[in-house]
Amino acid sequence: MSIHGSRILIISMDAPTLRDIRQAAERIRPYAHRTPVLTSASLNRMIGAHLFFKCENFQKVGAFKFRGACHAVLTLSDEEAARGVATHSSGNHAAALALAARTRGIRALIVMPKDAARVKRAAVAEYGGHIIFCEPTLASREATLAEVVKETGATVVHPYNDRRVIAGQGTVALEFIQEVPHLDSLMVPVGGGGLISGTAIVVAELSPGTRIIGVEPAGADDAFRSLRAGRRIPCHQPRTIADGLRASLGDLTFAIIKEHVDRIVTVGEEAIVAAMRLVWERMKIIIEPSAAVPVAALLERKVDLAGQRVGIVLSGGNVDLDRLPWPQAPCG
Amino acid sequence: MSIHGSRILIISMDAPTLRDIRQAAERIRPYAHRTPVLTSASLNRMIGAHLFFKCENFQKVGAFKFRGACHAVLTLSDEEAARGVATHSSGNHAAALALAARTRGIRALIVMPKDAARVKRAAVAEYGGHIIFCEPTLASREATLAEVVKETGATVVHPYNDRRVIAGQGTVALEFIQEVPHLDSLMVPVGGGGLISGTAIVVAELSPGTRIIGVEPAGADDAFRSLRAGRRIPCHQPRTIADGLRASLGDLTFAIIKEHVDRIVTVGEEAIVAAMRLVWERMKIIIEPSAAVPVAALLERKVDLAGQRVGIVLSGGNVDLDRLPWPQAPCG
Repeated sequence: MSIHGSRILIISMDAPTLRDIRQAAERIRPYAHRTPVLTSASLNRMIGAHLFFKCENFQKVGAFKFRGACHAVLTLSDEEAARGVATHSSGNHAAALALAARTRGIRALIVMPKDAARVKRAAVAEYGGHIIFCEPTLASREATLAEVVKETGATVVHPYNDRRVIAGQGTVALEFIQEVPHLDSLMVPVGGGGLISGTAIVVAELSPGTRIIGVEPAGADDAFRSLRAGRRIPCHQPRTIADGLRASLGDLTFAIIKEHVDRIVTVGEEAIVAAMRLVWERMKIIIEPSAAVPVAALLERKVDLAGQRVGIVLSGGNVDLDRLPWPQAPCG
Repeated sequence: MSIHGSRILIISMDAPTLRDIRQAAERIRPYAHRTPVLTSASLNRMIGAHLFFKCENFQKVGAFKFRGACHAVLTLSDEEAARGVATHSSGNHAAALALAARTRGIRALIVMPKDAARVKRAAVAEYGGHIIFCEPTLASREATLAEVVKETGATVVHPYNDRRVIAGQGTVALEFIQEVPHLDSLMVPVGGGGLISGTAIVVAELSPGTRIIGVEPAGADDAFRSLRAGRRIPCHQPRTIADGLRASLGDLTFAIIKEHVDRIVTVGEEAIVAAMRLVWERMKIIIEPSAAVPVAALLERKVDLAGQRVGIVLSGGNVDLDRLPWPQAPCG
């Protein structure tokens, strides 16, 4: 048991390698979409660069999160799998884990605050996830999850601070640089840091000339401040419409980001909404506010990438279509 | 001059051939996008068929209309081109002709009712079209266009009842059946009939086992009634949210449809809005109401295509994002 325990510790503390990410790509291939890369002549003109958009809004469950969750579920032993998986989340990771579990025919137990939005509950339920409601506090979420694990023996799949999850998210970059080589910069939204961590590991080895730029909402800028301070400074009261980016870095994602990420920039809320709307209007695709954050950095000229080949990960497309973040004109 | 005149007559009255459409594809290739075909597991499950969506919402100007307008502009002699092109339209054809003209470096004169929506005027202006306002009646539009032509010698490019335009629209089907062979059915929205005419000519020769199903809003069902009556019955007061489908068939498009189209079905307004919303939500792409019309026919079970391979042309994605056809929940 102690050997088993120490192996778990090493796995959960160590960053995945490029080899892990390549294995993840092989494993998830039958289940996840290889998402398309789109371009837009009008956005290129507007920004003055060659932009390439990796469309994870077209991924299963509408977000890149399916890759990491799927990989984590597929790496379980049969014995572990039989006891199911669990997490606390009300966002895309919850839906992703539910679908990933269904794919393997096992149970997903999702702890969710009882005030979670109707559409988010519906998404998890649709993919067959079993929802356990808790009070809307972090303490209640963690206590409820601990109880679920104790009762069921389910394996907790953390949304980002997990080697297997990071390896899964890294497959976005693997596909991206395969399809679009020689990117000068690659822009990625930063929440808990799973996506940018996986991206950074791939790019460091396979495309070292590509600069990685993380982008955060100014109202949830823990990665920006943590990187500057050299230690993790979690954001206790994130305020941003980009609901996928309200989480703070974990120790594992922070360590990877510190080593590999060139720069984190922050953007304001108005720019996020403007960027989201611009992508809807010009590219005819639906992206969620979190996915618009890197585009907002370009619109706000937070980075000067003039003439560059710039990759942008559009991380997801889950939006409540009944609550758009811009006003509707009166009818008629 | 009389020989020239009679050649024009034959060209405008005769349907294009498959060869014409192949030539159109060659001609427009440097300018138009080859649009992707998307699929959706959740829509497949919902409808019980294998659906393939040809995404003309990703075409230049956001609609298939660019293909026909571009082809028409490219077939002009240098002498004709020097005098420019003209049309009366307030929809996607206007924007398409403006961009097509700019592509060749010539002038596009667009007659538009003075009450046309701001976004539509803006689209034409953005692509460099020259707008001439008229009264919001068909008589005024036609008189103003005639005047423009008399003054400038510009070539009129009709939005659909034109051999060159139909040949351009036919390139959608050419790409579609190349990428997705052995379709059992192919569903196309019907307005003036340019898209379905071009589609029908391609399918009749290259994929004769594929059934072509035209879909119209019940509030603009002239093709349905015309096909049943065996003669053109224009719709004088179309009432539908699908603004791209308010036009009535021309003599040329009617003749082609009569010969080649298996069936026209009609759908209600509520189903159109529901279908549009469903595609936004599930596929994360923005389509306009006109493009949702074939999907509405599937939702309403107007056609039984269970288990079939069904192609659907998503004709465009130009929507005023400030005036969505469903209510927004109050904030908070």
